[in-house]
Amino acid sequence: MISDKINKNAHDITSFLMIGQSNMAGRGDFADVEIIDNDMCFMLRMGRWQKMSEPINPDRGIFEGNFHSGISLSASFADSYTEHFGKKVGLIPCADGGTSISQWLPGEILFDHAVMMAKLAMRSSNFGGILWHQGESDCNEFDFPLYDERIILMITEIRKELGAENLPFIFGELSEDISGDWNLSDYPAKMNEIFRKIEKKIPNCRCVKSDGLTLKNDGIHFDSPSLRELGCRYFKAYLDLTCEK
Amino acid sequence: MISDKINKNAHDITSFLMIGQSNMAGRGDFADVEIIDNDMCFMLRMGRWQKMSEPINPDRGIFEGNFHSGISLSASFADSYTEHFGKKVGLIPCADGGTSISQWLPGEILFDHAVMMAKLAMRSSNFGGILWHQGESDCNEFDFPLYDERIILMITEIRKELGAENLPFIFGELSEDISGDWNLSDYPAKMNEIFRKIEKKIPNCRCVKSDGLTLKNDGIHFDSPSLRELGCRYFKAYLDLTCEK
Repeated sequence: MISDKINKNAHDITSFLMIGQSNMAGRGDFADVEIIDNDMCFMLRMGRWQKMSEPINPDRGIFEGNFHSGISLSASFADSYTEHFGKKVGLIPCADGGTSISQWLPGEILFDHAVMMAKLAMRSSNFGGILWHQGESDCNEFDFPLYDERIILMITEIRKELGAENLPFIFGELSEDISGDWNLSDYPAKMNEIFRKIEKKIPNCRCVKSDGLTLKNDGIHFDSPSLRELGCRYFKAYLDLTCEK
Repeated sequence: MISDKINKNAHDITSFLMIGQSNMAGRGDFADVEIIDNDMCFMLRMGRWQKMSEPINPDRGIFEGNFHSGISLSASFADSYTEHFGKKVGLIPCADGGTSISQWLPGEILFDHAVMMAKLAMRSSNFGGILWHQGESDCNEFDFPLYDERIILMITEIRKELGAENLPFIFGELSEDISGDWNLSDYPAKMNEIFRKIEKKIPNCRCVKSDGLTLKNDGIHFDSPSLRELGCRYFKAYLDLTCEK
């Protein structure tokens, strides 16, 4: 009954699409941070709005060790949004751990799924923008040289599909402290250079810095306190982008 | 990487759509049953197959008291399927707690969402049928008289959308022990009569009995052991339907 009330009165929700791989999905441990309990924050479930409750992006089970669905950057993003604007916000969770940029190109399942969910969400919200975090799976000699071209294609096409060529697109740097066990060499730093170039090349994009953020002891996933901080940085970037003079 | 392997080799998965309200979504407590850990069982996440892990249907948060996403009938259904056929099975979770049949009619968000998810699943599986449990929200004087007509419309149209007029459709009786606090009067028993009529009226449908099943102390949701049993009954009904001479 509560969810019916939310959904009937939901056109005052501003919604954001969450896409990318595990550091957008969120692998933070629940015990490491306080729960964010905010009645103005919602998440899309089965096409409808429910009160936000972590894990927001259920791409994996919750009992899967370091790879469980967990704390993500989106909760503190949403919380910051409501605090700043005093308005409702909705998250559309479509991130999928371990995925490469080639799996996010038009016609791929993940691209189509994200577009479908965003369009369902638009029936009962105002679409506000896209939050992206991905790149680790492309930190290799075969995919890295193609990353620039592929992500620009993805950004351009998803904006077209969602009917707004200048839709805010916020993305984040990879951690440059990823453990040597993951064999990513110095690709994370090189990837971050690409992100900074894209920010200048493509209109209405912002790249969020990852400096000072820390990782879980799996050596690749941001820990929960860092994900809270990263979400706040994403919100500040969104604010800069949309409120700049 | 594991999920990539699953998805590239997924055309040997037989998939089932889960739709309806909370007793399909599943509100069973985790502590009351053993986890089902079966490498042949999968669940759709972001349009792709992941190893099955409860809660399978994340329509609500996991920390929401009696209304949390929890154990559902689908895990033992899937487990029974693999045990009987020795083949992989995939679940497409689209149930949403508290919803009425009018919210599942063509053009409604829940109908469209379920069709979209089933179609995404079909890209990498053989679609096997539909599992439905719903009715409690229509146990009132306004909606009950229209239920028969509405559910038949829903069954007919969803089969059309999914391209198979005789798609197996398995549904289950409501509990007739629902607590008086829910003010459903004798409507659950009347609803079950409707289900038995529909089973005879519509081809390739089976209605699963709820006798002997028990409820959580919220007085409306099946408890975890009963959901395990209900899933086995759903599988037997599916077997009867598809293997009958």
